[in-house]
Amino acid sequence: MNKEKNIYFFGKGKAEGSTQMKELLGGKGANLAEMANIGLPVPPGFTITTKVCEYYSKNQEYPGGFEEQLKENLEKLENEMGKKLGDNNDPLLVSVRSGAAQSMPGMMDTVLNLGLNPTSVQGMIKKSGNPRFGWDSYRRFIQMFGNVVMAIDGEKFEHKIEEMKKKKGVEKDTDLEAEDMKELVGIFKEVYKNETGEDFPNDPLVQLRKSINAVFGSWNNPRAITYRRLNNITGLLGTAVNVQAMVFGNTGSKSATGVAFTRNPSDGRNQFYGEYLTNAQGEDVVAGIRTPHYITTADSREWAEAQEMSEDERKRNFASLEETMPESYRQLAEIREKLENHYKDVQDLEFTIEEGELFILQTRTGKRTGTAAVKIAVDMVDEEVIDEKTAVMRVEPKKLDELLHPQIDPSAKVDVIGKGLPASPGAAVGKIIFNSDDAEKAAESGEKVILVRNETSPEDIGGMSAAEGILTAKGGMTSHAAVVARGMGSPCVAGCGDLAIDYSSKTCRFKDKGFKEGDWITINGSTGEIIGDKAPLVTPELTGDFARLMEWADKFRNMGVRTNADTPEDASKAREFGAGGIGLCRTEHMFFGEERIPAMQRMILSEKGEEKDAALKKLLPYQKEDFIGIFRAMEGFPVTIRLLDPPLHEFLPKSDEDIEKLAGKLGVEKKRVKEKIESLEELNPMLGHRGCRLGITFPAISKMQTRAIIEAACELVEEGVKVVPEIMIPLISTETEYENQEKVVREEAERVIEEKGVKVDYKVGTMIEIPRACLVADKIARSAEFFSFGTNDLTQMTFGLSRDDAGKFLPEYVESSILPNDPFMVLDQTGVGELVKTAVKKGRKSSKGLKIGICGEHGGEPSSVKFCHRTGLDYVSCSPYRVPIARLSAAQSAIQQEQEKNSGKEPSGKKEKVLT
Amino acid sequence: MNKEKNIYFFGKGKAEGSTQMKELLGGKGANLAEMANIGLPVPPGFTITTKVCEYYSKNQEYPGGFEEQLKENLEKLENEMGKKLGDNNDPLLVSVRSGAAQSMPGMMDTVLNLGLNPTSVQGMIKKSGNPRFGWDSYRRFIQMFGNVVMAIDGEKFEHKIEEMKKKKGVEKDTDLEAEDMKELVGIFKEVYKNETGEDFPNDPLVQLRKSINAVFGSWNNPRAITYRRLNNITGLLGTAVNVQAMVFGNTGSKSATGVAFTRNPSDGRNQFYGEYLTNAQGEDVVAGIRTPHYITTADSREWAEAQEMSEDERKRNFASLEETMPESYRQLAEIREKLENHYKDVQDLEFTIEEGELFILQTRTGKRTGTAAVKIAVDMVDEEVIDEKTAVMRVEPKKLDELLHPQIDPSAKVDVIGKGLPASPGAAVGKIIFNSDDAEKAAESGEKVILVRNETSPEDIGGMSAAEGILTAKGGMTSHAAVVARGMGSPCVAGCGDLAIDYSSKTCRFKDKGFKEGDWITINGSTGEIIGDKAPLVTPELTGDFARLMEWADKFRNMGVRTNADTPEDASKAREFGAGGIGLCRTEHMFFGEERIPAMQRMILSEKGEEKDAALKKLLPYQKEDFIGIFRAMEGFPVTIRLLDPPLHEFLPKSDEDIEKLAGKLGVEKKRVKEKIESLEELNPMLGHRGCRLGITFPAISKMQTRAIIEAACELVEEGVKVVPEIMIPLISTETEYENQEKVVREEAERVIEEKGVKVDYKVGTMIEIPRACLVADKIARSAEFFSFGTNDLTQMTFGLSRDDAGKFLPEYVESSILPNDPFMVLDQTGVGELVKTAVKKGRKSSKGLKIGICGEHGGEPSSVKFCHRTGLDYVSCSPYRVPIARLSAAQSAIQQEQEKNSGKEPSGKKEKVLT
Repeated sequence: MNKEKNIYFFGKGKAEGSTQMKELLGGKGANLAEMANIGLPVPPGFTITTKVCEYYSKNQEYPGGFEEQLKENLEKLENEMGKKLGDNNDPLLVSVRSGAAQSMPGMMDTVLNLGLNPTSVQGMIKKSGNPRFGWDSYRRFIQMFGNVVMAIDGEKFEHKIEEMKKKKGVEKDTDLEAEDMKELVGIFKEVYKNETGEDFPNDPLVQLRKSINAVFGSWNNPRAITYRRLNNITGLLGTAVNVQAMVFGNTGSKSATGVAFTRNPSDGRNQFYGEYLTNAQGEDVVAGIRTPHYITTADSREWAEAQEMSEDERKRNFASLEETMPESYRQLAEIREKLENHYKDVQDLEFTIEEGELFILQTRTGKRTGTAAVKIAVDMVDEEVIDEKTAVMRVEPKKLDELLHPQIDPSAKVDVIGKGLPASPGAAVGKIIFNSDDAEKAAESGEKVILVRNETSPEDIGGMSAAEGILTAKGGMTSHAAVVARGMGSPCVAGCGDLAIDYSSKTCRFKDKGFKEGDWITINGSTGEIIGDKAPLVTPELTGDFARLMEWADKFRNMGVRTNADTPEDASKAREFGAGGIGLCRTEHMFFGEERIPAMQRMILSEKGEEKDAALKKLLPYQKEDFIGIFRAMEGFPVTIRLLDPPLHEFLPKSDEDIEKLAGKLGVEKKRVKEKIESLEELNPMLGHRGCRLGITFPAISKMQTRAIIEAACELVEEGVKVVPEIMIPLISTETEYENQEKVVREEAERVIEEKGVKVDYKVGTMIEIPRACLVADKIARSAEFFSFGTNDLTQMTFGLSRDDAGKFLPEYVESSILPNDPFMVLDQTGVGELVKTAVKKGRKSSKGLKIGICGEHGGEPSSVKFCHRTGLDYVSCSPYRVPIARLSAAQSAIQQEQEKNSGKEPSGKKEKVLT
Repeated sequence: MNKEKNIYFFGKGKAEGSTQMKELLGGKGANLAEMANIGLPVPPGFTITTKVCEYYSKNQEYPGGFEEQLKENLEKLENEMGKKLGDNNDPLLVSVRSGAAQSMPGMMDTVLNLGLNPTSVQGMIKKSGNPRFGWDSYRRFIQMFGNVVMAIDGEKFEHKIEEMKKKKGVEKDTDLEAEDMKELVGIFKEVYKNETGEDFPNDPLVQLRKSINAVFGSWNNPRAITYRRLNNITGLLGTAVNVQAMVFGNTGSKSATGVAFTRNPSDGRNQFYGEYLTNAQGEDVVAGIRTPHYITTADSREWAEAQEMSEDERKRNFASLEETMPESYRQLAEIREKLENHYKDVQDLEFTIEEGELFILQTRTGKRTGTAAVKIAVDMVDEEVIDEKTAVMRVEPKKLDELLHPQIDPSAKVDVIGKGLPASPGAAVGKIIFNSDDAEKAAESGEKVILVRNETSPEDIGGMSAAEGILTAKGGMTSHAAVVARGMGSPCVAGCGDLAIDYSSKTCRFKDKGFKEGDWITINGSTGEIIGDKAPLVTPELTGDFARLMEWADKFRNMGVRTNADTPEDASKAREFGAGGIGLCRTEHMFFGEERIPAMQRMILSEKGEEKDAALKKLLPYQKEDFIGIFRAMEGFPVTIRLLDPPLHEFLPKSDEDIEKLAGKLGVEKKRVKEKIESLEELNPMLGHRGCRLGITFPAISKMQTRAIIEAACELVEEGVKVVPEIMIPLISTETEYENQEKVVREEAERVIEEKGVKVDYKVGTMIEIPRACLVADKIARSAEFFSFGTNDLTQMTFGLSRDDAGKFLPEYVESSILPNDPFMVLDQTGVGELVKTAVKKGRKSSKGLKIGICGEHGGEPSSVKFCHRTGLDYVSCSPYRVPIARLSAAQSAIQQEQEKNSGKEPSGKKEKVLT
């Protein structure tokens, strides 16, 4: 005889379960119990435990005693509701829902209106006085039950509805009348019989038992198993089943349904906020067919004023809940207090009023904008509801983007003409310009410009910098345009497939809409949307609440945050945003200035060593000047400078015209220049002659760059400025490459130091961005003083995926869940992360306490920052505008780790296996 | 008091050490002892043990008792030689050499003529009657001692010789006379004093002690430490020091020096073979200033006949050792017998005859050609000298290349006009043709053709196949030309930097030599050499000794060998070479036929699904036909077919003219075709939209290919032919990609099987060629039925190295030891191998007994094949012509593993760490 408690009841003001019993009752069941316990008027019901599911999965039958408990609980439910299942006057209807401890798509979801049969439908009609409502509910029940419980293709039912509409000559489901619905009930029952071979069950108990069986059965269906496998969900007993009384907001004018937030989720004001509709179902509020009314009179009035609606008309047509159902409103306002006191966070609740009686159907943490999140967190600390750590944990880091960039005024109506990738956040308004030179000229004469190109290259830097924002037709989240734009903090939409450009006529099209140079356009780099006009922008401020929150974050974090910056301007900006150094200073951009590129080109094109050296000598003062500016801006902080990385052909012209110009400048035959350019072309430049491979074949380049860095450092040290240069060798795949370049760098550095007679402390280290480097990190760490993960390239090579070319299939991959995310945006912890962990472990095995950072694009993405923290990195580095996001993420990870430690749990970083 | 034996003597007919004492005496010392023990007339001497080195390294002094032992052994040596160090009549001179248990460049090497001083040089002159010989020996000693022992820059001495020659107005060292040499001795002593601050030591004991110190000191010099680290040499005590009496072959007409092989190393005949010179030093024989004579009269006569030299003249000027020094020759012939009996292998020995007394200076295993290796191994089995396993171990697998391809007649004089990479072995003669169509036409009319191009593309397949050989100016060992040529078994020289082609005038240049279409040329794909004319070729046979050896190899190997073949012809050829199935059948080449490519292009260019499907339908019969042919050729063996892999743009024309033609054929606007081609272009095609990524975005391609495979299989099964199709999905990086494509393949396969009503067993598996796939191999193996490592791409991605572009720096990398080998030829066991091991371990963890093979180019490279065997792979697959090499390598690895097991050693495969 089973003594175990199989079923937990929840009702008015009390429940047998609680929020702590998630494992046994599932998330939904525990939450329903919790709401009942704190006195919310939850429609009563009961939860069948996950243990029953486990027993059922093993034995294909129910534990002894289960039947009795089910019967008892059903009776209790009928008593509490004062209604009976199958009753011919006022029948009880119930919903049946699955709910495991973790939410899990792929399992059987929901059956509504259970309990309807030829008798009870009459009771329902009698009670509501609405035959259409009754028959519609019944046919919905048959359809849902048939589809969800008996796995009948939903199309079979939909097809019958279509036939009915055709027959009746109507277009919408809502145009069908009570009689039609009644007829559909009959037809649906036939479909059911044809498909299952049995009659549609009339006995509510049979309906209920079949539904419970189906929920439990769905626990082990292939979709659910795959979902658990893909999401590494293990150790769950099974799913629970929730059986709950149905309530209806659409029984008449005394009924209503709505949603509400305990504070304003847009701006964070401490103000009750919500919408409702009388005589409606929950889905009507969100469906947008009827305009919902506000809950509070204040909001209602504000809205009406914006619409220029008279108070009279508002009251007549859009009265608030406060006005129409003051008692329910009063109860709801009380519940608002109760919820925030209990959950200590903003709640998003769903309610239904059935014939004047208020029911709370659901409450959950309220989603909010970034601005609201910051305000609410800081307000709650001031109200002494939460502490600072909790406040820091409350704000989703990536939402800070909103606070850091101009945004399109959320209240403005805009006309979206196309969509690309949200490549660099913020919105920008400007005139369309199709090339860099024109963009620079227009900007000089005071025009606001959006640079619109198929793709950008390093030669476009000038125009990109002059433009308000950048829009490209090709390329992905880590294309040149995207990376550079994020670095500059300029909004960018990349890879807009809807965009076709004709450079020759200086026009472009978004699908069917044509635009020409000078036309206004707005891009939203946070959403990827393009608006074919000037949209109004709003600019947020970085002081006040934001500054306080960031201060708390810095107090709690224990991982450094640096920035990727190539110019003194970027470095200063990043310092303002709280960066503690430069993690990646790319030197290649420094060669693109008008007076610099010719020397660079001469260096590349000259055959003889002396010519090359002479050209390099010309570049030295420019490089040095750049470094002086950057060191000065980052005074006292470390600056990691990467030696030349891109293949040399990136510095050479491509068009015939430009080649001719260059040949003239160099005083060399055009044919020779062309030949040389051709000989430098590469089939796969990403995997070509670049990075340390350049330094190895042309050590003079590494030497010149080292000299520039150390001379700059010496000069500033003499001035009394504290500089901490770190020289980084890129694209290492073997320890021998590193040793080769380290020798070149150190010898030149020591030479300069001796010449200048100034003491400069510098470090030499390497970028870890090639899979092989991770595998031999122990060997590299024998000489390298630091590692910095270049996770952009590491992702490219670990996946065998070019970020520039992935645009053709990556979106489809993410859409069809082949990949959970774009791995160039969110670090792939399973694959790339495994290599990162291997490298950290191997590196620190050879060199205890080795300084390790990350300077890929992932350094500013919250989940990746947290991964870096758990993996034991010393710092992350990201573009200036993402520095606050990284700071907040690092703080959250530190707090989380501390909490796990305090709760005796293994810190999550430790749980993951590391390659030896 | 030290009781330990520090020094081991070796002398006439006996030695204190033996070949087993390698660890204590070093390789050289143990070998000298061994030679003495078997009665070879080795110049006597003694070996100071590696333990002394260990003691010295730790304490910077010698163990107690060492001095006494050194004195004792020196006396013993003087007694045995009947000469005394520093004697003024007939002085003993010695050499001092280092020698660890493993040979190790980077350590102090050799000091010769030690013991010379102002007194003994007179003794030497007196004895030899040759003052120049005496003074030259003395100045050489000072130079060597100064350089090797005291680390004086050798240039300092060379400079003085130059000055002396200038002063004397002569050009060559040999033109300097006795007096000049004597003067140089004085000058060298001054150099020595200037550089070291001390006088050059006259006391032979001081000379000896300083030399011994220097050898032991060199054990821990940075170069030696680096060498040990790079080569993973650990566990050695130190180096030994060998002190050995000097003997001279240049004391007069009764002296001689020479080298000999116990059998002919060129053709393997069991025939004593060697060369000598009277009154000469060892270096004179190899230097080529004087023409050495043959040892045997038979060889001497054969040679003279080839030169059309009279017997008289031969006897006068080129008499054999057999003729001039019959007694020494008799001794030497006896030694030959003794050596082969002892070492049971061909020996390569160096001898010196000093005043009629024969000394053996060195014996070692004789290097031999592939042909000789096979013949000697098989002969020795027949002679019952060795067993079959030993015979299999004796032949270097890669030397089989010689036996499998035509070679340039080794006796022919040829004019090498350029050099490229030895991309596909064998030699070919033909007329230069610059494009594929012309090559096909010329071949049809019976011409022999060499296709000469900058690089080849899949469109050149026809011409490549028609040509005798292929020569390209660009590209590396795994360029398209190289890979396809190896597959076809055609000789290929790739990346010939000396070659400049002008397609328009149909001419080319090798440096300064011009050639035009139709000129004869010979390429040597085994060496990379280009000969500007018709060179005579020799064709070896695959029967007899070769066949017997391969039979033995197959008996001992326990790993499968398959082939990479895309056509029935290749499949048949590979079967002849012993392949047991196809490990990689690429399907893309099948789309390049004249009647096929238009359908493929239409498929790619059509926008609508139906058009695509229709085009695919046209391709189906072609594919099916190909598979029928291949299955038939491989009857009974598994055939692994890879679904379409290359990016689609590879199938589209590039030139404006071809695009226009295509547009016409398709009946589409040229502009539209061009746009589409442009939209398909990729910056890094290697990392682009290819492999399974194509199948995921265009499942219809995977479906069509599956249908073709299974329909072909069904047809043959009905005929009674046994087929074993294995469908391989390329470029997988996540288990979700695999699952997606597996579903498409299985559904279509089952559909065909149902339609045809024929039972076909087939497998679905994947290529492991992306680093990430190795890291998640456990997840992929949950569904994949087999893995096949694509180590070409895996190497590219693990190193971040495009094989097509690496030509610009990879040669320099190998030359400067940044990489030990081209990783596309020899599998990088440290990096790529680590990923392979990880994938094997993870894969088999999920799926015990998972079938795993390799189908990259490495599958035919001996050290890589052995790695695959040790790592537990089930088979390797390589191009047809490399199948015998793989069979032999696999056999050797199996024998080696068995030997290690029997000797109680851990098998070498187990020693290596594997990622978990």
